[in-house]
Amino acid sequence: MLSSSDERQGHFERAHDPARVLALSDGVFAIVITLLVLEIHVPDLAQGQSLREALREIRPSFVAFLISFVVTAIAWAGHRDLFTLIRRTDRGFVWLNILYLLPLSILPFGASLISTYDKDSVALGLDGLILLSIALTRLAIWWYATGHPDLLHTAVDAQSRRAGAIVVSVAVIIYVIAIALADPAPTASLAIYAAAPVLYFIGITISRASAPEGSAREDFT
Amino acid sequence: MLSSSDERQGHFERAHDPARVLALSDGVFAIVITLLVLEIHVPDLAQGQSLREALREIRPSFVAFLISFVVTAIAWAGHRDLFTLIRRTDRGFVWLNILYLLPLSILPFGASLISTYDKDSVALGLDGLILLSIALTRLAIWWYATGHPDLLHTAVDAQSRRAGAIVVSVAVIIYVIAIALADPAPTASLAIYAAAPVLYFIGITISRASAPEGSAREDFT
Amino acid sequence: MLSSSDERQGHFERAHDPARVLALSDGVFAIVITLLVLEIHVPDLAQGQSLREALREIRPSFVAFLISFVVTAIAWAGHRDLFTLIRRTDRGFVWLNILYLLPLSILPFGASLISTYDKDSVALGLDGLILLSIALTRLAIWWYATGHPDLLHTAVDAQSRRAGAIVVSVAVIIYVIAIALADPAPTASLAIYAAAPVLYFIGITISRASAPEGSAREDFT
Amino acid sequence: MLSSSDERQGHFERAHDPARVLALSDGVFAIVITLLVLEIHVPDLAQGQSLREALREIRPSFVAFLISFVVTAIAWAGHRDLFTLIRRTDRGFVWLNILYLLPLSILPFGASLISTYDKDSVALGLDGLILLSIALTRLAIWWYATGHPDLLHTAVDAQSRRAGAIVVSVAVIIYVIAIALADPAPTASLAIYAAAPVLYFIGITISRASAPEGSAREDFT
Repeated sequence: MLSSSDERQGHFERAHDPARVLALSDGVFAIVITLLVLEIHVPDLAQGQSLREALREIRPSFVAFLISFVVTAIAWAGHRDLFTLIRRTDRGFVWLNILYLLPLSILPFGASLISTYDKDSVALGLDGLILLSIALTRLAIWWYATGHPDLLHTAVDAQSRRAGAIVVSVAVIIYVIAIALADPAPTASLAIYAAAPVLYFIGITISRASAPEGSAREDFT
Repeated sequence: MLSSSDERQGHFERAHDPARVLALSDGVFAIVITLLVLEIHVPDLAQGQSLREALREIRPSFVAFLISFVVTAIAWAGHRDLFTLIRRTDRGFVWLNILYLLPLSILPFGASLISTYDKDSVALGLDGLILLSIALTRLAIWWYATGHPDLLHTAVDAQSRRAGAIVVSVAVIIYVIAIALADPAPTASLAIYAAAPVLYFIGITISRASAPEGSAREDFT
Repeated sequence: MLSSSDERQGHFERAHDPARVLALSDGVFAIVITLLVLEIHVPDLAQGQSLREALREIRPSFVAFLISFVVTAIAWAGHRDLFTLIRRTDRGFVWLNILYLLPLSILPFGASLISTYDKDSVALGLDGLILLSIALTRLAIWWYATGHPDLLHTAVDAQSRRAGAIVVSVAVIIYVIAIALADPAPTASLAIYAAAPVLYFIGITISRASAPEGSAREDFT
Repeated sequence: MLSSSDERQGHFERAHDPARVLALSDGVFAIVITLLVLEIHVPDLAQGQSLREALREIRPSFVAFLISFVVTAIAWAGHRDLFTLIRRTDRGFVWLNILYLLPLSILPFGASLISTYDKDSVALGLDGLILLSIALTRLAIWWYATGHPDLLHTAVDAQSRRAGAIVVSVAVIIYVIAIALADPAPTASLAIYAAAPVLYFIGITISRASAPEGSAREDFT
């Protein structure tokens, strides 16, 4: 028979197990990554219209789907990288993760918005706010987790902690600039959103290459 | 070779394994938590209308999405807390869990309803009924599980069992009051629905702080 | 280092592991069980119409959601019971399971159809065909799995195998009768569809009670 | 206490664990396989129209659902077969898998397109491009994985590697032909799309039968 202390420890581990946090998150990721496909409907042809013309009209739906797919895929890869460090969750971590899923869920709407109104400052600003919220909650999760070594498989040293925060902060700053430019220079704003995924790949590649031998960053996706 | 008794025990464990109950539940949670995003469509602009005005018109969809997201997240966190106690399921438990998923699935409709008709007594009453059904089935699962120690990792003592039931009963009473007020005082009714998530956080925080040293309640999310 | 024979055995086990079959199936179950909620939209009010009247008009959507929820829940519970027996899958089993998911996916359409056209023989016949296909593929899976003892944790004896087949065959016969009655006696046909879930519960309860001591049937959900 | 080298190894294994890649993929597969059911709506009856006639009008939706279901099921079975070989993932593999999920997600749109415009060369060409993209990314994953023995449970010899690539290349060639025929011979093009799943089954069956004793191919689904 288990001693009371073993029982207590058993419940503690189950209560801090990340398994269901991942199950919910991966479910949300899978839905968000495919959601905008639902918006791509086979068009009806107007009088004398060719299918090619009709498909050209629904091009913004394709573009929105692509943007949403790529941004969600990057978010998922980053989420997966983060959770390779996590051994346990706690109340704060679970709720921060839920907070992170919130702007992620609205992302398809933002992508759809800027694909339809690609020069409208309101659309560009709103999409920027969604992307900024994803980056900010991501930063909060990173800072929280690395400040709670009991949640981690291996403690993250202060330097790596700051390095990780700086990487996400760069995204935060980029999106703030893009939002600020939404009204005076919508084209520049749009260019930033388009370039962000490319910057991310470059950033991760540099981060992997510059990672000290044997650090977790070498394995980032 | 296994003896017949070992085989019997093996099937018993597989038949009472909570794994697929969690897989189905987390799938439903992920869908419900993102479902209302599907209702937020990029608006077409009427003659002379700005995008800002058009977005203001679809604000109820955003509000409904937010309500549904928060309530579902709370329900998921509570469901996760409950299942940290569960070692096995049985027929009654599985069906109570399915019964619990039923009002949860309709929750997005209720959120959508009160965000559109926020002063209509029928809308407020119907949304209250959905929330009440979630609380009542939650209460039933708690009472059932804690009354079947063979389903639990560790038996729950009578005092903790009552304490857990009282917490959910408070939610039941609050929703009954909100439903009763739907017709005579719709604003009060709406205020209660808005306040309920806040009350939940306060309730859990008190419950964690007041939990006896080493009790499972300390780990609740 | 592993010998080639161990490697072969390792791949054999991975290739016959039911894990991903369950992951796909539970994903489909979760989607199907919540799908019709998407059809329940908050109604717009016509001139002088009350919300109560408008909601009454969308009642068929609620009924369809409920039917679909209950039938899918039963199918899921049966699928879970079946897989407690399964240790391995093989090619035939995997494809039979996919074949089973096909009518299951169309079930929401059938439920929606009879809730809108509840006296139309075409609607009743089509819904019956969907339910019949679910029962027939279920029967095929049972017969296939129990005829391949290498797929099972414990071999099923000939008597239990026939007993299981008879239970599902009763459902097959009931649905054939309901389809035959769709045209001459639509009300009787509808009554059979409504009664089927009730019959299922009674059937399982009898099956559990009459199961020989120590048989797998005792644990069915 | 763990040595730093053990910690490093632990993170390495978690960072290359395929579990979440499968969770995301199976979520996407489950959504894609059921997505087109959402397009099958219960029809409203026009004046004097029978339900049978109204259902006949929405037949393309059924056909699109069926095509999408079958092609997705085949893709899922192939994905499952592939992952029985995979022990670890790496950055390239994870992104190739995401790239593979992209055309898969658009597949329902392609199926819907050719079921509505079954003689239109643009529809046939676009659907062909989607199917071709699935085959090409599949080929890339196969080539990448088998060229990185550290990702595999058991190294794949050069002959098996080429044999696997040839099987998928046949699909690539078939789809290229179907796309080329879309304009001059739409009926032939359509026939190829319809025949492809049948060819797949025959191909796998031959591949299983001709597999050398003890090779992984014997277990393919």
